Amino acid sequence: MKIPDIQNQSDSRNIVIDKVGVKGLRYPIVVEDRINKTQHTVAELDIYVELPHYLRGTHMSRFVEILHHYHQEALIGNLENFLNELKDSLQAEAAYININFPYFISKKAPISHISSILSYDCEFSASLKEEYDLLIGVRVPVTSLCPCSKEISAEGAHNQRSIISIKARYQEFVWLEELIEIAESSASCEIYSLLKRVDEKYVTEKAYNNPKFVEDIVREVTLKLEQDDRITGFLVESENAESIHSHNAYALISRLHK
Amino acid sequence: MKIPDIQNQSDSRNIVIDKVGVKGLRYPIVVEDRINKTQHTVAELDIYVELPHYLRGTHMSRFVEILHHYHQEALIGNLENFLNELKDSLQAEAAYININFPYFISKKAPISHISSILSYDCEFSASLKEEYDLLIGVRVPVTSLCPCSKEISAEGAHNQRSIISIKARYQEFVWLEELIEIAESSASCEIYSLLKRVDEKYVTEKAYNNPKFVEDIVREVTLKLEQDDRITGFLVESENAESIHSHNAYALISRLHK
Amino acid sequence: MKIPDIQNQSDSRNIVIDKVGVKGLRYPIVVEDRINKTQHTVAELDIYVELPHYLRGTHMSRFVEILHHYHQEALIGNLENFLNELKDSLQAEAAYININFPYFISKKAPISHISSILSYDCEFSASLKEEYDLLIGVRVPVTSLCPCSKEISAEGAHNQRSIISIKARYQEFVWLEELIEIAESSASCEIYSLLKRVDEKYVTEKAYNNPKFVEDIVREVTLKLEQDDRITGFLVESENAESIHSHNAYALISRLHK
Amino acid sequence: MKIPDIQNQSDSRNIVIDKVGVKGLRYPIVVEDRINKTQHTVAELDIYVELPHYLRGTHMSRFVEILHHYHQEALIGNLENFLNELKDSLQAEAAYININFPYFISKKAPISHISSILSYDCEFSASLKEEYDLLIGVRVPVTSLCPCSKEISAEGAHNQRSIISIKARYQEFVWLEELIEIAESSASCEIYSLLKRVDEKYVTEKAYNNPKFVEDIVREVTLKLEQDDRITGFLVESENAESIHSHNAYALISRLHK
Repeated sequence: MKIPDIQNQSDSRNIVIDKVGVKGLRYPIVVEDRINKTQHTVAELDIYVELPHYLRGTHMSRFVEILHHYHQEALIGNLENFLNELKDSLQAEAAYININFPYFISKKAPISHISSILSYDCEFSASLKEEYDLLIGVRVPVTSLCPCSKEISAEGAHNQRSIISIKARYQEFVWLEELIEIAESSASCEIYSLLKRVDEKYVTEKAYNNPKFVEDIVREVTLKLEQDDRITGFLVESENAESIHSHNAYALISRLHK
Repeated sequence: MKIPDIQNQSDSRNIVIDKVGVKGLRYPIVVEDRINKTQHTVAELDIYVELPHYLRGTHMSRFVEILHHYHQEALIGNLENFLNELKDSLQAEAAYININFPYFISKKAPISHISSILSYDCEFSASLKEEYDLLIGVRVPVTSLCPCSKEISAEGAHNQRSIISIKARYQEFVWLEELIEIAESSASCEIYSLLKRVDEKYVTEKAYNNPKFVEDIVREVTLKLEQDDRITGFLVESENAESIHSHNAYALISRLHK
Repeated sequence: MKIPDIQNQSDSRNIVIDKVGVKGLRYPIVVEDRINKTQHTVAELDIYVELPHYLRGTHMSRFVEILHHYHQEALIGNLENFLNELKDSLQAEAAYININFPYFISKKAPISHISSILSYDCEFSASLKEEYDLLIGVRVPVTSLCPCSKEISAEGAHNQRSIISIKARYQEFVWLEELIEIAESSASCEIYSLLKRVDEKYVTEKAYNNPKFVEDIVREVTLKLEQDDRITGFLVESENAESIHSHNAYALISRLHK
Repeated sequence: MKIPDIQNQSDSRNIVIDKVGVKGLRYPIVVEDRINKTQHTVAELDIYVELPHYLRGTHMSRFVEILHHYHQEALIGNLENFLNELKDSLQAEAAYININFPYFISKKAPISHISSILSYDCEFSASLKEEYDLLIGVRVPVTSLCPCSKEISAEGAHNQRSIISIKARYQEFVWLEELIEIAESSASCEIYSLLKRVDEKYVTEKAYNNPKFVEDIVREVTLKLEQDDRITGFLVESENAESIHSHNAYALISRLHK
């Protein structure tokens, strides 16, 4: 039986489609881990190509088929090959993949030194047009404590959970763990899943002695990223879930298009 | 043209369906407002009936049709009539409606007395089986400050945004505003959209002088609800977005089925 | 009592912050309605300014204070004034506001002509740097039916709910309703909250006779927007919740930066 | 240094707290896999205890500490031991854990037999009061095709992605895969991540020849669960993302408390 290939029809509307493909595909992956070599996790994938003006449709089954060519353990180390194969298979001028996943790190509490595991939402975002481009990203939960509230109040200071996001482009390899450390060291205090009372005393006092506005956080991250010669572009955001409001405080610095 | 009525076919599987209907229908509504008499807002509706064992399907278009009989301003005041009409139209033994909506209240900052608007997610949940039953619900953002962190630390105390949820059944009318006040007065401090520096000093110090565990919050709400003779059943939750963790602290007390 | 102004401290890090402000502020608004003149709805607001390198922080309370200067009914018609006031008050080179809200339109079913209300997520996104810029946006639920599935199958064709998103910049006023009509007329069939059986027959057959790939949808919207002289830039997306997969099909065409 | 234990203070309000603990804790886990023996995935955990009336607070750090006693590979096989240790450590009358995680199954396309991976949101929900109780749950994406739309239309029929949810209590071991098969066999057609054209023809025609209302789906699942002697209680839901509406169709049958 011959089954017609409708997607392969020619298209006379003469319109290139910037991105077309699959979105929200969940897939188990293995990522490199600075301590344990590898880590199993679960990703959500968006995979797109640019569609030439003369084709009516792309072949979405090939996106998933090519993905399965890369055994789940090999995908992350072969993103450029994956995008190349996608471009060739689909006669595309450009190909894109976004990979979002939780990444787990074992941390020791600051005083008791008891270990616990904290998760960070991370991202690889790769594209291949004339050149290959890769952005890596982390979203890091931290504590922020308000300098104004501390200064004007007789006692105490409002503080809250904040999320610091960093996306970075590099010319020499950078670990996700390194971006996470940059974020954590730029907040009022870092966060742990397990804190005994001696640790809770420590993080409370550390945050109180280390107040940061949302503006301070993104500027401190920026200073650190600018001083790292491996990093060639970045975007920093901080979003603070203000404990005294029901809206958030937010700041963004972009050095992606320098 | 005669169009067949498939839903109306008889069903031999002999299984009552507890709830069947429409979910996630967005609809503009008008609700009663203690200060301004009425308030326009936007609701998400779930509407269900119990389906008798002898019918293959319900008629979902009638759910929306009957909803439109109740001009948007009249729905909330006529929930029992609405459910009665639904039961009759669909040969149902029971009918249900959940109405979720943001509700806005103008609040004055504690010292500067500048007004601003805060939103609260509210809910009406009505059912009609042999008897009519109505639960009203509020979700109230507040500040909680940790008593342990305060006690053990030289200075400061971790605090965070928390959401206190109350669902209540009453025998005499209770305003949403009354449940909101019960929640706000049971936290370390209430929340405002607009705070000048004098106000920020006040709320910081008030929270510091009024530390509450998640357990304290649900117990204080419980005491107040038990002392109100109009209220015949309730469920209280508090979820605190811990500023020192990336998970939440949570507590629940249910007195719905007493 | 003199309360220190910490935000107003000078900053020596010499880093401009691209955007800083409040995010996720909920606020009741009134928008223009082509049929009913005005419509009450509920918005979520993000409001930012650019922070000069010499200031440590912005004054977030002023964002909400200036918002309240604009009585809720006047905000949408005065976005440029609002941004100007914000820039002046905060010594900023740029100011931004995003306003996201559900917008309701009463629609008549295609054959029975019974009216019902459908909601569309809409957006105003305004910025003021040297010049004022406004993007308006709509997210439109529609039905898409797969041309390939129809062609290769003996009977039937898979179809699904899709969301077509349009953001547009204009030089002459364009109604949200006009963008919605462009989206609905580019799908396999438009969507209604209430359909009687005669209507369900109509929309089923219309979609079957009008198959569209996700690629067809964004190209047809593009053709219509390019033919409208009032529109000077746009971005179109379609995301189809494929009924035969658990991931989505997605396409994007951007003509924003031409 | 002696650090005071505030949570351990006695409480005079005389109110038992039904549930108190941690919510939204992300944690890597290993689950049993019928084909591959084990599978690495990522869970979100809620862990609660009942708090006696005489204690002011629970010790939340112990929840995470006890969790870490169970090496990640052993947790799922030791839920009753975990809850017992939690009860003892926290002087609690009851303990609870909910574990939500994506679970991946490799499936062969129906005609081409090409393999691809599909993810299912699964759940273990365990409690220990006087007795140990375990519910296992699956959320299964499927295709549903409307019998009414098919019957009344000259050609075609609206269809959509639906989610069938099953929670079940058993007296003899039941695999997640078995509940998933019950759900998939009760829909118009099952779903795959990868379908070649021959497969797309097959699933389109299979769904068209197998129309199901949301009511049919929950009744067929119910019949199958009632016929399985291992299963002693269950709850079934189906939610269909109607392609002709922007709200969903929903049905629920509960046999949990029989």
